[in-house]
Amino acid sequence: MEPGGDAARLGLGRAARALPPRLPPLLLLPPLLLGRGLRVAAAASSSGAAAEDSSAMEELATEKEAEESHRQDSVSLLTFILLLTLTILTIWLFKHRRVRFLHETGLAMIYGLIVGVILRYGTPATSGHDKSLSCTQEDRAFSTLLVNVSGKFFEYTLKGEISPGKLNSVEQNDMLRKVTFDPEVFFNILLPPIIFHAGYSLKKRHFFRNLGSILAYAFLGTAVSCFIIGNLMYGVVKLMKMVGQLSDKFYYTDCLFFGAIISATDPVTVLAIFNELHADVDLYALLFGESVLNDAVAIVLSSSIVAYQPAGLNTHAFDAAAFFKSVGIFLGIFSGSFTMGAVTGVVTALVTKFTKLHCFPLLETALFFLMSWSTFLLAEACGFTGVVAVLFCGITQAHYTYNNLSVESRSRTKQLFEVLHFLAENFIFSYMGLALFTFQKHVFSPIFIIGAFVAIFLGRAAHIYPLSFFLNLGRRHKIGWNFQHMMMFSGLRGAMAFALAIRDTASYARQMMFTTTLLIVFFTVWIVGGGTTPMLSWLNIRVGVDPDQDPPPNNDSFQVLQGDGPDSAGGNRTKQESAWLFRLWYSFDHNYLKPILTHSGPPLTTTLPPWCGLLARCLTSPQVYDNQEPLREEDSDFILTEGDLTLTYGDSTVTANGSSGSHTASVSLEGCRKTKSSSEEALERDLGMGDQKVSSRGTRLVFPLEDNA
Amino acid sequence: MEPGGDAARLGLGRAARALPPRLPPLLLLPPLLLGRGLRVAAAASSSGAAAEDSSAMEELATEKEAEESHRQDSVSLLTFILLLTLTILTIWLFKHRRVRFLHETGLAMIYGLIVGVILRYGTPATSGHDKSLSCTQEDRAFSTLLVNVSGKFFEYTLKGEISPGKLNSVEQNDMLRKVTFDPEVFFNILLPPIIFHAGYSLKKRHFFRNLGSILAYAFLGTAVSCFIIGNLMYGVVKLMKMVGQLSDKFYYTDCLFFGAIISATDPVTVLAIFNELHADVDLYALLFGESVLNDAVAIVLSSSIVAYQPAGLNTHAFDAAAFFKSVGIFLGIFSGSFTMGAVTGVVTALVTKFTKLHCFPLLETALFFLMSWSTFLLAEACGFTGVVAVLFCGITQAHYTYNNLSVESRSRTKQLFEVLHFLAENFIFSYMGLALFTFQKHVFSPIFIIGAFVAIFLGRAAHIYPLSFFLNLGRRHKIGWNFQHMMMFSGLRGAMAFALAIRDTASYARQMMFTTTLLIVFFTVWIVGGGTTPMLSWLNIRVGVDPDQDPPPNNDSFQVLQGDGPDSAGGNRTKQESAWLFRLWYSFDHNYLKPILTHSGPPLTTTLPPWCGLLARCLTSPQVYDNQEPLREEDSDFILTEGDLTLTYGDSTVTANGSSGSHTASVSLEGCRKTKSSSEEALERDLGMGDQKVSSRGTRLVFPLEDNA
Repeated sequence: MEPGGDAARLGLGRAARALPPRLPPLLLLPPLLLGRGLRVAAAASSSGAAAEDSSAMEELATEKEAEESHRQDSVSLLTFILLLTLTILTIWLFKHRRVRFLHETGLAMIYGLIVGVILRYGTPATSGHDKSLSCTQEDRAFSTLLVNVSGKFFEYTLKGEISPGKLNSVEQNDMLRKVTFDPEVFFNILLPPIIFHAGYSLKKRHFFRNLGSILAYAFLGTAVSCFIIGNLMYGVVKLMKMVGQLSDKFYYTDCLFFGAIISATDPVTVLAIFNELHADVDLYALLFGESVLNDAVAIVLSSSIVAYQPAGLNTHAFDAAAFFKSVGIFLGIFSGSFTMGAVTGVVTALVTKFTKLHCFPLLETALFFLMSWSTFLLAEACGFTGVVAVLFCGITQAHYTYNNLSVESRSRTKQLFEVLHFLAENFIFSYMGLALFTFQKHVFSPIFIIGAFVAIFLGRAAHIYPLSFFLNLGRRHKIGWNFQHMMMFSGLRGAMAFALAIRDTASYARQMMFTTTLLIVFFTVWIVGGGTTPMLSWLNIRVGVDPDQDPPPNNDSFQVLQGDGPDSAGGNRTKQESAWLFRLWYSFDHNYLKPILTHSGPPLTTTLPPWCGLLARCLTSPQVYDNQEPLREEDSDFILTEGDLTLTYGDSTVTANGSSGSHTASVSLEGCRKTKSSSEEALERDLGMGDQKVSSRGTRLVFPLEDNA
Repeated sequence: MEPGGDAARLGLGRAARALPPRLPPLLLLPPLLLGRGLRVAAAASSSGAAAEDSSAMEELATEKEAEESHRQDSVSLLTFILLLTLTILTIWLFKHRRVRFLHETGLAMIYGLIVGVILRYGTPATSGHDKSLSCTQEDRAFSTLLVNVSGKFFEYTLKGEISPGKLNSVEQNDMLRKVTFDPEVFFNILLPPIIFHAGYSLKKRHFFRNLGSILAYAFLGTAVSCFIIGNLMYGVVKLMKMVGQLSDKFYYTDCLFFGAIISATDPVTVLAIFNELHADVDLYALLFGESVLNDAVAIVLSSSIVAYQPAGLNTHAFDAAAFFKSVGIFLGIFSGSFTMGAVTGVVTALVTKFTKLHCFPLLETALFFLMSWSTFLLAEACGFTGVVAVLFCGITQAHYTYNNLSVESRSRTKQLFEVLHFLAENFIFSYMGLALFTFQKHVFSPIFIIGAFVAIFLGRAAHIYPLSFFLNLGRRHKIGWNFQHMMMFSGLRGAMAFALAIRDTASYARQMMFTTTLLIVFFTVWIVGGGTTPMLSWLNIRVGVDPDQDPPPNNDSFQVLQGDGPDSAGGNRTKQESAWLFRLWYSFDHNYLKPILTHSGPPLTTTLPPWCGLLARCLTSPQVYDNQEPLREEDSDFILTEGDLTLTYGDSTVTANGSSGSHTASVSLEGCRKTKSSSEEALERDLGMGDQKVSSRGTRLVFPLEDNA
């Protein structure tokens, strides 16, 4: 036994493990993901005891540095966790005292600001332990460097380019670097759960009822807003050039890019208050639907603007080909991401339908989580946008898979994504507060900032009012002035604008945009968040509405959106014509997709032509046959007005062609109408508005509520 | 407007974003955390359009590389997700068909193996896009390199040392590198939820009943096992040296280190089967408690062996000072981590008690999650072991905080950690399967492997049988031979041994240990997992036991551990004497800690001396006064035998000194006895064994079950 020698060996082993003393400070979870990990990655070659001993002192120093760095990483993450904890406690206090002038996100930002100030001015500017070395290399930067240090080889990876002026900042305040995360973290870690939750908790009935308007606001509106803001900002930039306030380049496409990132509205504050006050559900659906979809539009728009790149790099003329290429890229990415999300949702629905996985809620929840996450990765692997795919995956999961899940999994998945969403959202907002002081490349330009505020105001106005006017031409239930004003007012910017802005802060223009975006987010979240309740009462928008009760038909003190109220039958024709596409989709969904993907809907044997009999029998779930009274009919919560029902019913009768299935279909449909919104209520109740629910043995039975139709 | 020029600018912007084309392949979530992130970090200085144009081609190539790399990252993560999905579906199939010869973890390993083989031999060995450059540097390796490439500066970070022989492997198969994660990921991401869940779902009643034995097995047993395995392996190593099978150094401390890492048992398979078959609860408690605590012991033991480093590096003599230093470090780290975990748990309990946070389950769950996570970071920041702290935090949270949570949060937190645990565990096991083929530094040494198998068998035997013998001297309820054999049989190794082994694979010795550990894990999981059911029946261990029913008193076909069966009163004296320390702790916990930290227990006004009156009134929750019949008495589920009760009751009477509180205390205690195990049942039922639960409005009312005592 040679314990001493072993110890010497051990000393080296330990030092070798401790070698990389510096962790990339841009990572979200430095201690968690990299931690002391890199020390291990090295395949240290033991090159004799003599050399070991001589370098022992040095290794000890390196090891100490590594431990110090790991400790600092832990501390910086702890800072964020304590921030969030503080936010949660204050939120509770606010909710407890029914304070509504400041939303939790606003609160998170304020705490972030305070901690940012402390970190910026309160901590000593330790100049880091970085030993930098200049080493000249020709040609281009390689991704991996092998460096020969007195016989040992070390591997280095490229972190990024540094502008010559910033060379010193590499050695800047350690703590500020530690709390500055990789921007893509927002895209790849924090946004997906937020967006998925948005899709998953969509109140489908009201969403689909206003689908046309929502799509118009989200697509047309965002494009209009982007274009108007871009052009206005180009004017502002020209002005800045004239008065000599612009110290670097700022191109037209930069302006358009700014228009795209700042067009993503995020009325999280408004919606939270709407939810709490039970404000008008259609207005809620419009705002929510628009904001969810325009996030997706803004992502794709901004990346297609970046891709807008004329073939020859030196042509200064407007290049039509490049423009159409951009449009093509937009459409390609959007539809690709959409398809990806929908396909994963459908696959999950099929898997959960055809296995009896619902006997094991834990497995089911895990599968659901993994499949939803794989959407993101699949889209990214195929070059599409993961966040957009995740949104549509969420919608599909809620529409189909949710119905196949066991009752326990339903609440589990809801709650899991609710917690993730809550944490991610509050993290982003507190990080925003922090970033105002800890981000080291701010470019404050008063003219640009004022110009941006004006531009987003005008852009929002040019988006809401004309579009509402045109929509009202086609809509039977007009969007009233008070709704339009509320939508105008609620155009606040949040997490998505921030994430898009921080994604690229390499150039001067982008830094200016980032600073401006941050200020716009602050301003809109605080002002609009605080002003929502007064605004609601000032605009006479009713609150305390039961989301499942349609507005009273003769209430004409203000105009409301009415979907399937008692007067639907009268105005049936108009609606049927204007919405024939959606109508077609509904009947297709109800007759074919739902029966294939879930345990509900009419049996396929009645809806498919007779020659598909075998296939239909295979695909239809036995439950549908077993229970003529629909057993799991909780999902048929999209709009079935009288017209719809007749259409669908007639359709299936004709298709089934007098077969014995005809009666089945009609019974099923009648039953379905009765319980049509029960699944949605279940969702809402799960989210805390619950009543009339009895659960036994960990399963919840939902008593269907009768609609008042 | 100069759209063309803008586009050119944009082209640069895009390329600048795309600069770092290589992502560290060792990260767990490359696309998520690093993703395309690094492209952004660079603060690219725009140095004129002419230079830009000339380098455009090159930049395009770099960008393509970056996109390709990002895509590959997504694909590699997708591989794992699909693996897990496949595992889940097969698990379902197995559960559905009641197959018990292969546990889910064994399954995950098999799938991992298959995918590993495919990746290893099925994918073309693309030699990467790494352009490596040797660049000589004196003195030592720096953490950050600044490289000057024709005027631009690039920042590089140190990734690790590479042994000269492995220089070529840097350019090896891309896919294999992508699926090889940073070992610390296992420690910092995957283990904490597993360990926390273990602590949080501890069946407290049976755990505390066997606490003494569990502590003995975990501490003494692990130390014995570590020492024996270490010494046996040193013999094996000597033998290998003799026959010339050892090509590099292997010190005595390396052997001890191997003993430490391989002593962490992980009977996850056995416990899953126990749970399913409702096998004897005391045996379950012994196995579970031992495995949870010996994970903690193994972590701390292995790091103190690493720290065992004599003062002078060249002394080969046994250094007593260094030995005691190691022991001191062991005790320091262990008690520090323990304190850290307990303190965070207590703080969480206080926060949830004194705020009315339980009105908002989402906030409560988020707070609970954050506080539990902060334990890990806090311990790491203070230089203790996060994983150990998280374990004790879990136990404290379950013992105190759980009682303050709203009913919804209870199930939420349970379910959240259950899902995290499930995913993490299956990920680790499928990664183990994968690692057998994708890990590129395996050292297979048949002698060492056979020696290790023999050593762990002997180590386990020397741990279980003598210790059980000594424990039986003190125990009133002996640990029967069948129990001892079952414990011997269940000594399988799992996630913790793997994580400890992969943490450091820098040296030849460590690589050999890693390979051997992997094989031991495979073997034990498959064989023991498959053999549990036959073994149970062969050893005559009863299954189908109601965990809350104590074994029938006159059942003498085999010996069982009896805690508070009807004969407890008779053997009262013996027990009271042998367990006076725990007894003291119980009464302290019940009289002081529970009333301070939760809403239950006797009012402090009755248990504290009268002069503490004011303090007692402040700390006691009003619920305790309001409800003389205990309202939230669901937590008093630790052992109160007849003796205990008398002791505690007498104690409080004496302390309250004839005051009016005396009656209160007795009532409270009587009530407490009646409902004593109801909280635990609630836990178990939440985990899927439920019955007799009615919930209304999302809250669950638990009907207390009467004990059969």
